[in-house]
Amino acid sequence: MSTTLARLAQTIESRKLENGGDPATSYVAKLFSKGDDAILKKIGEEAVETVMAAKDARVSGESAALVYEVADLWFHSMVLLARFDLTPQQVIDELARREGLSGLDEKASRKAD
Amino acid sequence: MSTTLARLAQTIESRKLENGGDPATSYVAKLFSKGDDAILKKIGEEAVETVMAAKDARVSGESAALVYEVADLWFHSMVLLARFDLTPQQVIDELARREGLSGLDEKASRKAD
Amino acid sequence: MSTTLARLAQTIESRKLENGGDPATSYVAKLFSKGDDAILKKIGEEAVETVMAAKDARVSGESAALVYEVADLWFHSMVLLARFDLTPQQVIDELARREGLSGLDEKASRKAD
Amino acid sequence: MSTTLARLAQTIESRKLENGGDPATSYVAKLFSKGDDAILKKIGEEAVETVMAAKDARVSGESAALVYEVADLWFHSMVLLARFDLTPQQVIDELARREGLSGLDEKASRKAD
Repeated sequence: MSTTLARLAQTIESRKLENGGDPATSYVAKLFSKGDDAILKKIGEEAVETVMAAKDARVSGESAALVYEVADLWFHSMVLLARFDLTPQQVIDELARREGLSGLDEKASRKAD
Repeated sequence: MSTTLARLAQTIESRKLENGGDPATSYVAKLFSKGDDAILKKIGEEAVETVMAAKDARVSGESAALVYEVADLWFHSMVLLARFDLTPQQVIDELARREGLSGLDEKASRKAD
Repeated sequence: MSTTLARLAQTIESRKLENGGDPATSYVAKLFSKGDDAILKKIGEEAVETVMAAKDARVSGESAALVYEVADLWFHSMVLLARFDLTPQQVIDELARREGLSGLDEKASRKAD
Repeated sequence: MSTTLARLAQTIESRKLENGGDPATSYVAKLFSKGDDAILKKIGEEAVETVMAAKDARVSGESAALVYEVADLWFHSMVLLARFDLTPQQVIDELARREGLSGLDEKASRKAD
């Protein structure tokens, strides 16, 4: 896996309350302390911000904000994964698995039908 | 970057219509042929499916479906990035940049205030 | 309540499978037959389409599509309400209740804090 | 239209900055002052909260929170409509139009195909 994603997953893990994360000083620890729904709301929020950034990028021709919003979406996805004791490696393995089985594209295609 | 993500980004790139992608046989090429809104609708859809999978996982204690939905969300994020000639490397660089600047967590914290 | 909303709620109710709704001929009966998640996915989908329509309206100056998407969002909200044996009248009563208690706006404001 | 919805639309209209709405004391005026994206983010947020409330209602058997979240979703839809100088009456007219044309259900069905 990307060393950045692996390191980020470790940082997020360290922010869990049982690992000493402090909601007073850490945004991630604060999310963990609020519980599942607070994290899930962020997933919805970042998805909508991604949609808006893409719409804006098409008008402005500037796509830096879109990269930023997708980073936010992936970041909060990783907080969600950690919340359920899952890792980004499992997500990447799932993507690789689909590819290995039958070509990721065909797999996605079958699912869509 | 993860070799899986890099390879996946390449596959997606090859499905663009200008690169010979065929909407009749490829799900990704079909999404590209439908345009921005079709891809953005998938982002919203996969975000909601991620939320539902997390809710279900909390009840069932089974989190495999959550990994699957996050994989779908990241996959369609990558199709969106490709649509705007962006790469997952740029997203990962953005995550690394935040970390490098001031600690990713503090950065997120400042943004949240 | 609006006679249109009341009549629509009745139509939706009549499409429940236990009331004789037929998934083969009715879109609503088909949604009911698919279950909660299919209806919830539509809520997410129509919310994202509303967001996109608003973004498009700001660029084009044409807002007819925005009315259409909000109608879709309210329609599927009503299917969801029916699924849980709730009515739009209860939603309108809730809006009236907030207004009656302390001024709807103040209520919303307190909630936001 | 419902007198509650009509009255609510009037209240929202009165909160526009050009009509004297004060962001310091009114939640709606504050949303208007923040602009389109702030309102659109609320649409996404309330849609996700509706999805979560439905999931919770299925587990708990209590659906009061679902009514509350749909009320929030409709309320913010009305703020969005006002932002684009549209009214809930136009949404209700659109729902009636579909019904009048060919049966709302068939219309939705055709759209879904």
